Amino acid sequence: YLVKRKFHDSWWKCAPQCRSVLPALAVVLIQAAWVSAEDGGGGGGMEELATEKEAEESHRQDSVSLLTFILLLTLTILTIWLFKHRRVRFLHETGLAMIYGLLVGVILRYGIPSTSYHNKTPPSCSLKEGPVSTLLLNVSGKFFEYTLKGEINSREIHNVEQNDMLRKVTFDPEVFFNILLPPIIFHAGYSLKKRHFFRNLGSILTYAFLGTAISCFVIGNLMYGVVKLMQVVGQLTDKFYYTDCLFFGAIISATDPVTVLAIFNELHADVDLYALLFGESVMNDAVAIVLSSSIVAYQPAGVNTHTFDASAFFKSVGIFLGIFSGSFAMGAVTGVVTALISFQYILHCFPLLETALFFLMSWSTFLLAEACGFTGVVAVLFCGITQAHYTYNNLSEESTKRTKQLFEVLHFLAENFIFSYMGLALFTFQNHVFSPIFIVGAFIAIFIGRASNIYPLSFLLNLGRRHKIGGNFQHMMMFAGLRGAMAFALAIRDTATYARQMMFTTTLLIVFFTVWVFGGGTTPMLSWLHIRVGVDPDQDLQPCGDSFQSKTKQESAWLFRLWYTFDHNYLKPILTHSGPPLTTTLPVCCGPLAHCLTSPQAYENSEQLRDADSDLILTDGDLTLTYGDTAITANGASSSSGPKGLNGKRNGSTSEEALERELDTREQELLSRGTRLVFPIEDHDINARGGKP
Amino acid sequence: YLVKRKFHDSWWKCAPQCRSVLPALAVVLIQAAWVSAEDGGGGGGMEELATEKEAEESHRQDSVSLLTFILLLTLTILTIWLFKHRRVRFLHETGLAMIYGLLVGVILRYGIPSTSYHNKTPPSCSLKEGPVSTLLLNVSGKFFEYTLKGEINSREIHNVEQNDMLRKVTFDPEVFFNILLPPIIFHAGYSLKKRHFFRNLGSILTYAFLGTAISCFVIGNLMYGVVKLMQVVGQLTDKFYYTDCLFFGAIISATDPVTVLAIFNELHADVDLYALLFGESVMNDAVAIVLSSSIVAYQPAGVNTHTFDASAFFKSVGIFLGIFSGSFAMGAVTGVVTALISFQYILHCFPLLETALFFLMSWSTFLLAEACGFTGVVAVLFCGITQAHYTYNNLSEESTKRTKQLFEVLHFLAENFIFSYMGLALFTFQNHVFSPIFIVGAFIAIFIGRASNIYPLSFLLNLGRRHKIGGNFQHMMMFAGLRGAMAFALAIRDTATYARQMMFTTTLLIVFFTVWVFGGGTTPMLSWLHIRVGVDPDQDLQPCGDSFQSKTKQESAWLFRLWYTFDHNYLKPILTHSGPPLTTTLPVCCGPLAHCLTSPQAYENSEQLRDADSDLILTDGDLTLTYGDTAITANGASSSSGPKGLNGKRNGSTSEEALERELDTREQELLSRGTRLVFPIEDHDINARGGKP
Repeated sequence: YLVKRKFHDSWWKCAPQCRSVLPALAVVLIQAAWVSAEDGGGGGGMEELATEKEAEESHRQDSVSLLTFILLLTLTILTIWLFKHRRVRFLHETGLAMIYGLLVGVILRYGIPSTSYHNKTPPSCSLKEGPVSTLLLNVSGKFFEYTLKGEINSREIHNVEQNDMLRKVTFDPEVFFNILLPPIIFHAGYSLKKRHFFRNLGSILTYAFLGTAISCFVIGNLMYGVVKLMQVVGQLTDKFYYTDCLFFGAIISATDPVTVLAIFNELHADVDLYALLFGESVMNDAVAIVLSSSIVAYQPAGVNTHTFDASAFFKSVGIFLGIFSGSFAMGAVTGVVTALISFQYILHCFPLLETALFFLMSWSTFLLAEACGFTGVVAVLFCGITQAHYTYNNLSEESTKRTKQLFEVLHFLAENFIFSYMGLALFTFQNHVFSPIFIVGAFIAIFIGRASNIYPLSFLLNLGRRHKIGGNFQHMMMFAGLRGAMAFALAIRDTATYARQMMFTTTLLIVFFTVWVFGGGTTPMLSWLHIRVGVDPDQDLQPCGDSFQSKTKQESAWLFRLWYTFDHNYLKPILTHSGPPLTTTLPVCCGPLAHCLTSPQAYENSEQLRDADSDLILTDGDLTLTYGDTAITANGASSSSGPKGLNGKRNGSTSEEALERELDTREQELLSRGTRLVFPIEDHDINARGGKP
Repeated sequence: YLVKRKFHDSWWKCAPQCRSVLPALAVVLIQAAWVSAEDGGGGGGMEELATEKEAEESHRQDSVSLLTFILLLTLTILTIWLFKHRRVRFLHETGLAMIYGLLVGVILRYGIPSTSYHNKTPPSCSLKEGPVSTLLLNVSGKFFEYTLKGEINSREIHNVEQNDMLRKVTFDPEVFFNILLPPIIFHAGYSLKKRHFFRNLGSILTYAFLGTAISCFVIGNLMYGVVKLMQVVGQLTDKFYYTDCLFFGAIISATDPVTVLAIFNELHADVDLYALLFGESVMNDAVAIVLSSSIVAYQPAGVNTHTFDASAFFKSVGIFLGIFSGSFAMGAVTGVVTALISFQYILHCFPLLETALFFLMSWSTFLLAEACGFTGVVAVLFCGITQAHYTYNNLSEESTKRTKQLFEVLHFLAENFIFSYMGLALFTFQNHVFSPIFIVGAFIAIFIGRASNIYPLSFLLNLGRRHKIGGNFQHMMMFAGLRGAMAFALAIRDTATYARQMMFTTTLLIVFFTVWVFGGGTTPMLSWLHIRVGVDPDQDLQPCGDSFQSKTKQESAWLFRLWYTFDHNYLKPILTHSGPPLTTTLPVCCGPLAHCLTSPQAYENSEQLRDADSDLILTDGDLTLTYGDTAITANGASSSSGPKGLNGKRNGSTSEEALERELDTREQELLSRGTRLVFPIEDHDINARGGKP
C-alpha cells in the first residue's frame, strides 16, 4: 500500500511537470533545427570559406540531426511509459515513434525556411573515364579529395541538398542494414522461445518459405496487373518491369508483427499462436531479404532483358539457395565457435570479458557473412539461435543476464529509431512518387497475398497436424500480417529508379496503415476471435488433455527427431557443459576420445538430463508419465524430481529453460505489477478480455 | 574444492585447444585481408564496372576491415583472460591490444602485395570556385555525386589509395572523437569514486588546470628549441611554427594512466593516490582538449601571423574559458534534466525504458554540446559526474546495474579498439614523418614537463594540505604520466600539415613507450616506492589516526563546504528521492513551495540522512564521533545506526555510497577469486608486494 500511495502521489505531482517537459523538448528541437539551418545559411553563403570551417559546420549539423532523433526517442520513451502506466494498448511504442517522426518531419519540411541559395545546381565537372571512388579537385593549385556517394538521376540534380537540415536527417540507407537491423534480428533469434518454436517448426518453416514465396508471386503478379492498368490509364510516367513487381512482392512479404507480439506477450495469449506468429515473422524476414536479392540478380541473357529466361530463373533460384544456406551455415558456425571458445575458456570470473566476447563474436558473424557475399542479417539470425542453444549454457549467470540486457537495449533503441525514421521519411524523403492506383492496388494485393499464404497452407498443414490450427488462429495470423522495419529497410535500400521510388512510398504507407490500424486493433480482435489470453506459458505442458502430447508427437517428425538425438547426444556435450557425458553416448571404441572431450560437470549432470530435456522430444513410449514429471519442473522449482536443485546456478541443461522461464516470469511480474498500480477503473479490463477461453 | 578441481581440469584440457584457436583466428584474418585485396584488384581493373558493383565491393571491404578489428579485439580478450588467469601484471589489455594491432599492421603493410595499378594518381578536375561540399561528376551523361573528404597535400596526391586494404582500415579521425571517446569519458565520470574525489578536489583541480597549463607551455617551449635546432641542423623540411609547438604541448599533456589505475585497482593501492591520479587524468583530458582548440583558435591579426599578439592571446584565453564553462554547464544541465525526468517519471517498473532513457540523455549531452559549438567530450564528462551524483539515486536497482554494465562494456570495447588501432596505425598510416631529433626531444620534454607539473605544484599544495602528498606519491604521479587515447585522438584529428604529421608520429611512439614501459613497471615501482597496497577502500574512514580527519577538514574549504550545503539541502531533495525534505531546509516562508516539491520518501529518509552523507563533509564539530559512526556504516550494513536497514533497496541517499561500495566489493571479490584460483606458486606474490605498508 505504501508503494502504491507514493506512486500515486508522485504521479499527480508529476503530471503538470510532465506536460511541461514535452513541449520544452519540442522547443529545443525546433530551435536546434533553426540554428542549424541558419548556420548552414551563413556557412554556405561565403564562397571563400575555408574547408575546415565547412567541415566543422557539417559536423555540427550532423550533431543536430542525430540529436533530433535522440530527442524523438526520448519523447517516445516518456510517452510509452505513460501509456504502459495507463495500460493503453491501442498504440504501441513503434506506432508512437512513427507519429512523433511524422510531426518532426512536418516541422522540418514546412517549419524551416527553404534555404534558397542552395537551390542551385552544385558545380559539376566532366570526365571521360567511368566513375571512380576517389576524385581530386584542383582549385587554384590546392587539391581536395572527394569520395563517391552514388549515381544520381539527372532529374534530381536540382534537388541535391535543397535543404541542409532535410539532407542531414536523411541517412545512408545502408545504415539500416548494417547498423540497425542486425541487433533487432539477433535479439529475435536469441530470445526465441525454443521449446514452442521447435515444436511448431514444421508449420513455421512452411509458412516462412512456401508462404513467403506464394505471397511474393501473388503480390508480384497482381501488381503487374495494376501497373498494366496504370499504363492504360496513362498514369505511368516511367518504366516499371515485371521484375520490379516481383521485387515489390518480395519486400512487402516480410511481416513484422512487433505490435501484435507485444500485446500477446502482455496478455499472455496462446503460446502456440505466439510461436507460430513470431517464428514465421523471424524466418520470413530472412526469406524475404534473400528472395529480393535473388530477384535483383535475375538478369536474362540476350537483348530483351525483360522476358522470361529459364536459365536466368534457375540461376536466381540457385542464388537464393546458395545465399540462404551460406548465411545459415555462417551463422551456425560462428555460434558454434563462440560456444567452443566459451566452453574452453572459463571466463566466468570476468563477466565483462565474457559479455564483450559474446558481443564481438555475434557482430563478427554479420561482418563475416557480408565479407563473403552472403546476407549478414540472415547469418545473424541463425547465429542468435545457435548462441541461445549452445553458448547460453556456457555463460556465467552474470553474463547471461548482461548479454540479454545488452541486446534488449540495442534492439529497443534500433527498433524505435527505425520507426521514428519512417515517420520522418514521409516528409523529408525527397523523391516520393505517390500513385493512388498503385497504392490502392498494393493494399488489395497484400491482403490477397497474405490470404493465399495463410489459408491454403493452414489447410495443408492441418491435414498433417493432429492439433489443428483453428479457424480463429488462421484469422489472427491473417490479421497480424503487419509490415515493419524489414520491408522499410529493403525498400529504402535502392530508390534510384522511378519504380523503386513508387514502391518506397507505397511501402511506407502500408507500414503506417498496418502498424496503426492492425496493431491498434489487436486487443479487440483477440477477444472477437475468442483466442484465450492469460495463459501460463508452461500450462500446456501439464497433462490437461491429449492435444499437446499428440501434437508433440506429430511435430517431432523423424528428421527432427534424428537431429534432436544427434544434438542431444553429441553436439551439446561437446559444445556445452550440459548434456550427457560422451562416454555414455559414443560407441565403446571411441572411449578415450569421449573421455577427453567430456567436461567433469557432464558426469554430474548425466542423471538429471533425461528429465530436463525430455519436454522437447520424447524418445520413449510413456508419454503421460514423462510429461507430468517435466511439467512440475518447468512450473517452478517447487517439487522438481532428481537432485536438480542441489547443483545450484550452473546447472547445465536447465539454463535454457531458465532463460525462457525468466523471460516469462518477468512478463508476468510486469503484468502483475501493472495490475497493482493505481487506476482501478481499468483493472477489470484484462479479466473481461481474458475470461473467454 | 570441487569448483577448483573442475576449473583445473578444464584448464588443462583447454590449453592445447586454446593454442589452436589463436592461430586459426590469425589465419582467418590474413585470408580475409587477401580476399579483400584480390577482390579490390578485380574490381578496380575493369573500367566499365557498374557503380553498384563498385559500391558493393567497397561495402565488402568495409566489412573485412571492421572484421579485422573485431578479431583483433577477440584475440585481445582471449589473451587478457589468460593473463588475468595467470595473474600477469606486466602487460595490460591496452598494451596487448597495441601489440596485436602492430602485428596486424605489419601483415597488412608487407603481407599484402601492393596493388600497383592503384599507384597512379586519381583523376582530377579543375574548378574556379572554392571547395564545395558536394560535387557532381558528369561521365557521358550520367551524373555521380561526390562528397568532400578534405584537403590533401600536393605531395600526397600520388599516395591516395595506394593499397585498398590500408585505406579501408584507416578510419575517419572524427570517429574517435564522436564514437569512441564519449563512452570512455562518460564511464570515467560515472564511475568516479566521488567520496575520495571530492575530498581531494582542490589538489586534483590544481594538477589538472594549472599543471596541464604548465606542462603545455614547458613542453611547447622546449619543443620550439628542438625545432630551432632541427632548422640549424637542416633536418626540418617544412614549416613548424611556435603555435604548432604549443599545440603539441597541449595534446601530449593529456595523461591516461589506464594501465596504472587498473593495477592500483587490482592491488588495492592507496585510495588517495588513486583518487589523485584518476581525478587528474580525467580532468586533464578535458583541459587538454579545450586547450588545444584554443591554441588552434589563436590567430594574430596582421600580416605576420606567427608573432605574439596580446589581443589574440586573450581571445584564446577567452575561448578556453568559454568552451570549458559552456561544456561544463551543458553537461551539468543535461544531467540535472535527466535527474528531473527520472525523478518525476517513476519508471522503475520498466528498467528497459529507464536504461534507454539514461543512455539517450547521456548521448544527447554530447550531441547538444557539439551542436552548440562546445566540446562534447568535456560535456559528457561532467554529465557523467552529475548522473552519478543525482540520477543514480532515482534509478531502480535493476537499472543502476544495467546502466553501469552497459557503459562498462562500451568503455571496454572502445578503449581496446582505440589502442589496437594505435598499433595498427604505426604501419598503416600513410604519412608518417619520423624525425629522430624531434622524437628524442619530445621524450625529454614530456619528462621535464611532467616534472615541472607535479613537483612544484605538490610543494605548493603541501603548504596548504595538512595531510601532505608524500615524496613517494609524487614520484608515483610522475611515473604514472602515461599517454593514451586522448593524446592519440587529438593528434590524429588533423594530420594535414607536415608539422602535424611529425607530431602524430611522435605521439604514437610516446604512447607505445609509456604504456609498455611505465605501464609494465607499475608493480615494481609500487613496491620500490613503498606505497601500501591491499588497502580496504573504506579503511581510511576509521579513526585510525588523525591524518584523514584533518585532511577532510583541510580539503573541505569554505567554497566547497558552501556548495556542499547547498547541494545537500536544496539540489538533492529537488532532483532525487534522497536528501532531507525541503520543508526542513527551506525558510518557513517558502513552506507551500517546499511541500509541493518534496517527495514523500524524503520525509522517511530525513532521519538517516545526516549520518549517511556526513562522511563527505563535516558541518559540526565532533569529528571523531561522526567518523566512527559513518565508518561502520560504510564498511557494511553490519551495525548501521538508525533505521537505515529497514527501508529496503530504495534507501535514497545511501545508494551513492552503495555504488562505490559495490564497485569496491566487486573488485575485492575479483581479487579474492583470483587468489582462490589454482596456481599456488604465484599466490605469495601479492603478499610480497602488499606487505610493505
